[in-house]
Amino acid sequence: MPEMPAIAGVTLATAKAGIRYAGRTDVLLVLFDPATTVAGVFTKSKCPSAPVEWCRAHLKPGKSSKNLARALVVNSGNANAFTGKNGRTATKMTADIAAKAVGCKAAEVFLASTGVIGEPLDASKFVAVMDGLVAGAKPGEFVAAAKAIMTTDTFPKVATATVKIGKSKVTINGIAKGAGMIAPDMATMLSFLFTDAAIAAPALQALLKEAVVDTFNAVTIDGDTSTSDTLMMFATGAAAGCPRIARASDPRLKAFKQALFKVLANLSEQIARDGEGARKLVEITVDGAVSKASARRIALSIANSPLVKTAIAGEDANWGRVVMAVGKAGEPADRDKLSIWFGGIRVAHKGERDPSYDEAAVSAVMKRPEIRLKVALGLGKGRDRVLTCDLTKEYISINGDYRS
Amino acid sequence: MPEMPAIAGVTLATAKAGIRYAGRTDVLLVLFDPATTVAGVFTKSKCPSAPVEWCRAHLKPGKSSKNLARALVVNSGNANAFTGKNGRTATKMTADIAAKAVGCKAAEVFLASTGVIGEPLDASKFVAVMDGLVAGAKPGEFVAAAKAIMTTDTFPKVATATVKIGKSKVTINGIAKGAGMIAPDMATMLSFLFTDAAIAAPALQALLKEAVVDTFNAVTIDGDTSTSDTLMMFATGAAAGCPRIARASDPRLKAFKQALFKVLANLSEQIARDGEGARKLVEITVDGAVSKASARRIALSIANSPLVKTAIAGEDANWGRVVMAVGKAGEPADRDKLSIWFGGIRVAHKGERDPSYDEAAVSAVMKRPEIRLKVALGLGKGRDRVLTCDLTKEYISINGDYRS
Repeated sequence: MPEMPAIAGVTLATAKAGIRYAGRTDVLLVLFDPATTVAGVFTKSKCPSAPVEWCRAHLKPGKSSKNLARALVVNSGNANAFTGKNGRTATKMTADIAAKAVGCKAAEVFLASTGVIGEPLDASKFVAVMDGLVAGAKPGEFVAAAKAIMTTDTFPKVATATVKIGKSKVTINGIAKGAGMIAPDMATMLSFLFTDAAIAAPALQALLKEAVVDTFNAVTIDGDTSTSDTLMMFATGAAAGCPRIARASDPRLKAFKQALFKVLANLSEQIARDGEGARKLVEITVDGAVSKASARRIALSIANSPLVKTAIAGEDANWGRVVMAVGKAGEPADRDKLSIWFGGIRVAHKGERDPSYDEAAVSAVMKRPEIRLKVALGLGKGRDRVLTCDLTKEYISINGDYRS
Repeated sequence: MPEMPAIAGVTLATAKAGIRYAGRTDVLLVLFDPATTVAGVFTKSKCPSAPVEWCRAHLKPGKSSKNLARALVVNSGNANAFTGKNGRTATKMTADIAAKAVGCKAAEVFLASTGVIGEPLDASKFVAVMDGLVAGAKPGEFVAAAKAIMTTDTFPKVATATVKIGKSKVTINGIAKGAGMIAPDMATMLSFLFTDAAIAAPALQALLKEAVVDTFNAVTIDGDTSTSDTLMMFATGAAAGCPRIARASDPRLKAFKQALFKVLANLSEQIARDGEGARKLVEITVDGAVSKASARRIALSIANSPLVKTAIAGEDANWGRVVMAVGKAGEPADRDKLSIWFGGIRVAHKGERDPSYDEAAVSAVMKRPEIRLKVALGLGKGRDRVLTCDLTKEYISINGDYRS
C-alpha cells in the first residue's frame, strides 16, 4: 500500500455510527475548502439508489456549470437503495445534518451509501457522530477513509500520484471499495478521487468521463451492475501556485491526465483482484476487431462467461470456451481467422488448435495468480482490454451460502 | 418418462463407435422415408460448429424450397467445432458414409455433433458402425436415441404428443440433450423432433421458428451460447390419410401447433431442470413491461444474473438482487412502480420492501425444488416468461475442478 500524502484543502474523518457493523468504522466525512469543484459518474442502472439520485440532482450538466462541494458523506452497511420515499427523505436528512455541522448548503454535500438493499437507512444515526467528525477531520487520513467504506473487501484500496500543472506540484489521491455485488445483500463499487489542482467543474467532468472508459468501465466481476456505483472527483484548487484550468483540452493537463488514468487504472485493478472469491486476476485483450467498441463487447463477453471463468479457476487453458464466448458476443468474427493465447502461448491459430503448443508450458502459465488471455480476430484494427477474475466456489459461498 | 410411440416413416439405431466415451452408445442414426421434409434452427454463434454449417448449407431458405431428409447422424463425445478444414472434411465424409449405406444423396443427410471443442473428429470411426446401424434401425427407439446423444445430462430427455390433422391421427416425438455448456469441454443443446404429419418444408420451418420463441429460446442456464445448438424437425408424411399441408397458416394445423409447442416446452423445461449442478428449476415471469421483447430482456437479465442464481441456491428471497438485475437490463423500468413476488408472495411493492410479507412463508417457498419469481413493472402490457436454474458449487465443480 502506498504512502498517502495529504491534499491541500481536504480533511477526512471516520466514525462508528453502528449502521450495521459492530466494532468498525462505517461513516466517512470528507471536508473541502470553499471553491472545490466536483464531478461524478454513476451506475447506468435504471433502478439507482437514493444517494445516486441525490448526487445526480446536484451535479448540473453543461459547459458553464459551477458544481461546488464542501462535504462528502459515505456510509457502509446500508445502500439506501430501493427504499422509496424513505430513501429520498434519508438522503435529504443526511445532507442537512452535514450541512448544518459544516456550515454550508445541503446542495454542496455529496452522498454515497453501500450495503444492504431495501432496508430503510436510519439517517438519525448520523446526528450523534457528525459534530465529532467535523471537529476531528484531519489531512492525510486516506487509508482510514478507505477502510470505513469497505463492505467485504479483503483490503482497503488506495492509490496516489503527483505531477505538475505548469510549475505547480499537484497530487491526486484515490480510494475505492469493492467490485460488483460484494457480499450477502451488499452492492456497489464506490471510488473517490481528490486533487489540489484547480480545475473548473465541466473540465473535471470531462476528464473523469474520459478516464473511466479504459479503467473502471473495463472491469467486470460477474456482469452484475450495482444500483449504487459511484465515482466522484473533487478538485480543491489549493495547491500553491496552481493555474486555474478551464478546459479539459488545456495542454497543461497532459501529465495530469496520465496520472489520473494511472490512479484509476490502479484502483480498478485492485477491485478486479479483490473480486468475490477471486484467486486470479485475469486480463483479456482482444485485437483485430472491426472497432474498439466491438473489441470491448467481445472482451466483456469472454470476461463475463461463467464457463471461461470456471475454466480459469480450474487452471485450464480451455480455448474452446473462449471461442464460444467470442461467438456469442454477436460481433463480427471469423472462426477461421481466430487465434488465442494464454500467458503469451498461442493455443489456437486460424480456427484450429495450434499443433505446436506445449501443454506443459500452458499448464504452468495457468497456475499463475495473473492470467493474460489474448484473442486476435484478424479482421481490423479494433483493440481493447478488460480485467476480471476467476469464478470459484467461494463466490457461491459468499453469495449463496449464508442462509442455508 | 412417457411411453414413446413409433412414428410412421422413422426408424432409429444407436451404436458404440468409441469416439470418446467407452462402454456406451455415442452414435445415433435416424432413417426417414423418402419425401420426408426437414426444418432447422441453429445457434446464433458467430463461430458455429462444422455440422451446423453443413445443415445450414443444405436447408434452402424460401417459400418454394423442397428440403428433404433421408438420414440424421448425431454423435456425442466430439463437437467437431473449431476444427477448421478438418471439420468440413469430417462432415462431408460422415455424410458420404451415411449416404452410401442408406442409398441417398449426401445432401439428404443431416448432422449434429456434441462434445469436445477443437479436437479433430475422426469420421472414419463411422465406417465400422454405419452398415450395422442401417440394418438394425427400428421404429420406436426414441429413448435409446436420447441416451446416445447425452453428454453429461443426468437423464435422457423425451416428449411426445398425438393430435389430429383433419381426420388423420399424427404423432410428434422429440428428444433432446443438455442445456448450455454441459461439462468439461462439452457444449451444446441438441433436439430433434419427428412427426408423421405431411407438411411442406417451408411450412415446417415457419412452425418451428415460431414454436422456439417461448420454449427453447426462453431457457438459459448460464448465458453461454454453444457453438453447436441445433433443433431440427422431420416430417415423414407417412401417417395414414394425412392431408399434405402447404402453409403454416393452414387452419387444420391448430391442434398440431399446440402439440408442437407442448413438446418443445416439455423438452426445454427438462433441459432447465437438468442444468449443470442445478438443484432448482426457476421460472421468471415479467409483466407490465413496455413490450414482450423488453419483458424478455429483463427476464433474461434476471435469469442470467449470478447473484440472483446464487441467492436462489442459498434459498434466499433476495429481491434486492432482482431489482439490481432489472436495473442493469437497460430496459424501461421505474424503481418506484416495481413489485416482486417469490412463490406467489409479494416481497417488494412500489419500490419498497412489502411491509406485510411473512418471512417464514417466503422461507418455506424458497426451500421448494421449483421457484416461481415474478416481477411486475407497472409500465405497460409486455409480458414474458423464461426458465433457468440456480447456480451452485456443483456448477463450479463440473466446469472448473477437473484439472485441479
